[in-house]
Order: sequence, then structure tokens, then C-alpha cells
Amino acid sequence: MALRAVGVDVVLSDPSRTTVLLARDLGAGRLPAEGDESPLLVVVAAPPDVTADVVLAELAAHPGAVVTDVASVKSGVLEAVTAGGGDLARYVGSHPMAGSERSGPTAARPDLFVGRPWVLTPGPQSAPAAVAVVRALAVDAGATPVDLDAERHDAAVALVSHLPQVVASLVAARLSDADPAALDLAGQGLRDVTRIAASDPAMWTSILAANAGAVAPVLRGLRADLDAVLGALDVAEGGEAPTGALGTLAGAIAAGNAGVARIPGKHGGSRRDDDVVVVIVPDRPAELARLLVDMGEVGINLEDLGLEHAPRQAVGLASLSVARGSGARLITELTERGWKVAG
Amino acid sequence: MALRAVGVDVVLSDPSRTTVLLARDLGAGRLPAEGDESPLLVVVAAPPDVTADVVLAELAAHPGAVVTDVASVKSGVLEAVTAGGGDLARYVGSHPMAGSERSGPTAARPDLFVGRPWVLTPGPQSAPAAVAVVRALAVDAGATPVDLDAERHDAAVALVSHLPQVVASLVAARLSDADPAALDLAGQGLRDVTRIAASDPAMWTSILAANAGAVAPVLRGLRADLDAVLGALDVAEGGEAPTGALGTLAGAIAAGNAGVARIPGKHGGSRRDDDVVVVIVPDRPAELARLLVDMGEVGINLEDLGLEHAPRQAVGLASLSVARGSGARLITELTERGWKVAG
Repeated sequence: MALRAVGVDVVLSDPSRTTVLLARDLGAGRLPAEGDESPLLVVVAAPPDVTADVVLAELAAHPGAVVTDVASVKSGVLEAVTAGGGDLARYVGSHPMAGSERSGPTAARPDLFVGRPWVLTPGPQSAPAAVAVVRALAVDAGATPVDLDAERHDAAVALVSHLPQVVASLVAARLSDADPAALDLAGQGLRDVTRIAASDPAMWTSILAANAGAVAPVLRGLRADLDAVLGALDVAEGGEAPTGALGTLAGAIAAGNAGVARIPGKHGGSRRDDDVVVVIVPDRPAELARLLVDMGEVGINLEDLGLEHAPRQAVGLASLSVARGSGARLITELTERGWKVAG
Repeated sequence: MALRAVGVDVVLSDPSRTTVLLARDLGAGRLPAEGDESPLLVVVAAPPDVTADVVLAELAAHPGAVVTDVASVKSGVLEAVTAGGGDLARYVGSHPMAGSERSGPTAARPDLFVGRPWVLTPGPQSAPAAVAVVRALAVDAGATPVDLDAERHDAAVALVSHLPQVVASLVAARLSDADPAALDLAGQGLRDVTRIAASDPAMWTSILAANAGAVAPVLRGLRADLDAVLGALDVAEGGEAPTGALGTLAGAIAAGNAGVARIPGKHGGSRRDDDVVVVIVPDRPAELARLLVDMGEVGINLEDLGLEHAPRQAVGLASLSVARGSGARLITELTERGWKVAG
């Protein structure tokens, strides 16, 4: 759909005839015609465990075509394509980092890739011209191409995607038999930590199994830190003079401070650079809209916006992140316009 | 400041003269005068490890007063006040579940408690009249009073507050020496999981140490689940027929699905009840405002709003949560008004 939007001729293929026809009806492309045997590029979108077989088949079926795949784990596919004797000059793995918890043609959107990273993982034997074709695919879809080798990609997603998924799921699992009174005390912290725990088990099983070699060391590092915290808690619980234990606990929280500060902000800067102004907003869309209209008039750019709700209450808190140094002026301007600034 | 706003006479006291004078200048109350020896209620706000001593001193100094404290861990304080021979009829522990990463008088806001739970943890010997006074304090501050005994409170916050804090810090700590290329791939999932990792180490050391007995079992449960995932990853990495391993991985993600679905939504309902519509929004406050104005005109209530930004791009994605069944109409109405719906 994204390629059709920029005028590219797209030919659809799928083991399921229903899926192909549905994709065509949704505007994703057309059915193969006579003499369609020379595609420039074949894009393989299949579950990780069958991706390499499909790539090998497409390399063989279309000797003039570049082939890419969009599986979310790359090393195993490259190894299997290599082992299978595929023409590596024409194969360039890739991973568009977009999507949702839904799949199939009805979940397709032409804008899915806009502004997202699309990682290219060319192997040492990939031809520069083949890499250029896949790069053009990413750009045509509106994504930002990023070059990484397959192993570095897999280590990166283990850390920034698979680790938070596993941990969010493990934390949420602790809530399964929780005291309902405890759940009523849940605040934004718990909600944020567990949001992605709603993800699809089948999809994540396949991702985690395919990237087990990169995910396991990251989780082992986390377990070592967790054991240190547990040891410190045991000491702290036990007695009057918890020698070293408090230092361990403070060290764990401080290490988190240092780590979270490294995550790039919206425009590549650290979130540390933002001033955050918290405003009390009556719980109606029009009120939040009015706040943002007022903000636009003030001329201060919104770097990020968070909304926090109190359970069963008619007000929310909007956290407005603005460039460092703009916070004080924003507070003044919003207060003059009748807003209650909460922090 | 919240009590002053509803006309309550507030007398300030602190070991630091500077802090008292600053609090007065900020409008939190007045200095003690001659004949001020009969307060109705004394509110103790001190670090957890000194709270019980201060409560005991205040119970002794003001024989006619109810005394509460606002420490975030309750059992230890009650035990120490009991052991210290305090008049338990006049002591009612409490915990307003509000605040930020900042502390001291300059962080004070009259609206800090609005709409937040304020847990009351009366002991078996607390007089009903004393409980009523502390309940009135919570209501006057705009909070929602919640009754729990001290141990149940401590177990609840271990689960919904201390567990996510420790885990967010441990995940963020894994980023300390991360490949910068990996950090550039960070998406909203990692950001959400690690947001609270920016919290203050000293404050959290004191909270975790004070609640070690309740936090440790929760973390041990998490570690057992983590060990199961690690075992499954080792099996999955090892071979062709990972018997049982895929089931373990799927089970961990599915348990997370079940747990996260139990967190109450904004109005006490489960988040499962919401339809989510994702809209592409140019990165200007006025555009987000226009979207919310359009939503208000459509007459569909906004249950929750999320914003997701692509690094270094001029568009964002707004996730609009609306009551189940309203999503389809919202998509139609927004599309008619020219919005691009992304998912």
C-alpha cells in the first residue's frame, strides 16, 4: 500500500488465495499477469522460522531480482540462506521497526512505516546495487534506513525490544492473582511498565525463540542485578546494621538513572534536556485541545506529552515536555490563561 | 497548602528553621503562636526510618491530638509506635499516593493530592473518631480515602509500586553500556518500561529497605518466572526440537496478557473495554489540538491518549482510546475530517 501510494507496480503472492485477493481489494497491488517473471525486488514477509526457505525459493525463481525479507530477527535467516546456497549478492535482509499487535492484510496501513527506522542488514557478499534497491524500498515507504550487520541488529533488538517485552510480561504476570485492593492503587508507573504486556504470545514466542542467543545474555545480566537486589533486601530485612545493603539498593536505582538518560529523545537529544510542566486538565477532549491551542499561541514547541488519570476522577494531569529553559515561561503563560499548573 | 485552600488553620514545624520559614512564605501555614498547644491533628512527614520516633514524640507532646504519618511503608511504623508505648487510639497511619521525583517545600503544590488514593491504615486500637479525622484530612486535600490494614498496604505497594520501580531500574541499567546504534532503535515500549527509572536513589533506597519483607517475595516470584524463560531460551537456542520451551515462552507472554488486563482503567473499568484508534499527527501542538477539537465535535469521549514519536521525524502517532464499539465511528468521522488513521 505504501509503494502503491508512490506509484510502484506491486505484484502480490501468498500461499492463501483468499489473502492475495483480500490484499488486492485493499489496494496493496495486483495479481500476477503473463510475463511478470522479472521483478526488480521481492519482499518476503513470512514467520521467522520459514523466512529463509521462502527467500531461497524466491532467489531461485527470479534470477534477476533482489530479495529482502522483513523478519524481526536477522542472523538466523542469513545463516540459513547461506547454508542453502542462495545467491548472497542479491539477498539483503531488512527489518522495518513498525507494526502493532495485529497482523494480516486487514491490519495493513499505507502509513505504517512513516518515520520509523527500517534496518538494513546486508551481508559481506551483498552487492551494493542490491543494498541500494532495498534502501529505496525503505525510503519509498517513508521509513528511515539504518545500516547494521545482522548480529549487531539482533543484539540491538534483544536489548531495546525483546528485553522490555519479557520484563513487562513478567511484571504483569505478578498481577494475575493480586489483591484487587492493590490493583486499585495502581498508578502511572505500573501502567507504563506493563503496557506492552498485552502483546501477542504466538508472535513473541517465535521472536524470542529465533533470537534466543542474543536475548539470553541480556536477561542473565538482568538476573544478576536482580539477585544483588534480593540479597540486599534480605540483609535489610534482617537487622539493624545492614552493612552494604543500602549501597547496593541505591546503586541499582542509580544505574537505572544512568541507563534511562541514554535513551535518545524525540529529536535525538536526551530527555534530560526537557523541562516538564504538569497541568491539571478537566477530563474532556475539548479541554486538552484548548490547552494545546493555548500552547501553540504561546509559541513553545511541545517535545512530548503525557496524560495521567486518577481512577474514577474528573480531572487528568497533562505533562508537557518543552525545551530546557522554556518551562518557566510556559508556566507563566499558561497560568495567565487560567490553567492550574500542578508541578 | 491544600488545607489552607479550604480554610484550615495549619501550624508549621520542622527541625530546620529555614524550611519552616520557606514553607510559610509559600503559603503552607503559619508559625506556632502562644497557646497553640492543642492541635486537632498532627501530620508527620519524615523519612521512613525516623517516622515512628516523631509520631511517638507528637503523641506525647499533644495528648488531645490525633496523629497520622504519611510514610510510604506502614507496618514498621505501626510496630515501632506500638513497641514505643504510643497511645494507639490516637494514631492512624496513612499514605497519600501522590508525589513526584522532587521533595521539599519548593516541590509543594496545593493540587498534588487531587484525585489520588490516600490510604488509611488504622490499627485495631485506633479510635473511630481518630480515623474520621484522618479521613477528613484526605478528603480536604482532594484525595480519595482508601482503608487497608498496614500489612495489606505494604504488600499492595510492593506489587504495584516497588516491583515496577525495581524492574524499570534494572532494565534501564542494562542500557548503561549499550551500543549507541541499539539506542537509536529504541521505541515507545522501551521508553514506557524505563520512564520511572529516573527516580531518586536515596528515596527509593529508604522505601525498599523499609518494605524489604514485602518486596522480596514479589521479586522472588519474578525471578522464578525469569529463570523459566531463561531455561526455555537455552533449549530454543540449542536445537531443532525444543520440547516444551516454546510453550514456556508463550505461557510467560500469555500470563502477562492476563495480568495487565486486571489493571483498572481510568474509570475503574478494564482497559480491555477500549477501542484504540491511531492517528497520524504532524508534529505541532496546534495539530494535536485540532484533532482533539474534532474529536470533541464528534462527541466521542476520550478514555486515554498516547503519543508516540519517531526519532528525528516531523510526525507523531496519537493513540486515542475510546469506549468499545465507538472506534469504527471515530475512524469514519476523523477520516471525513481529513485525518489519516494509522491503525
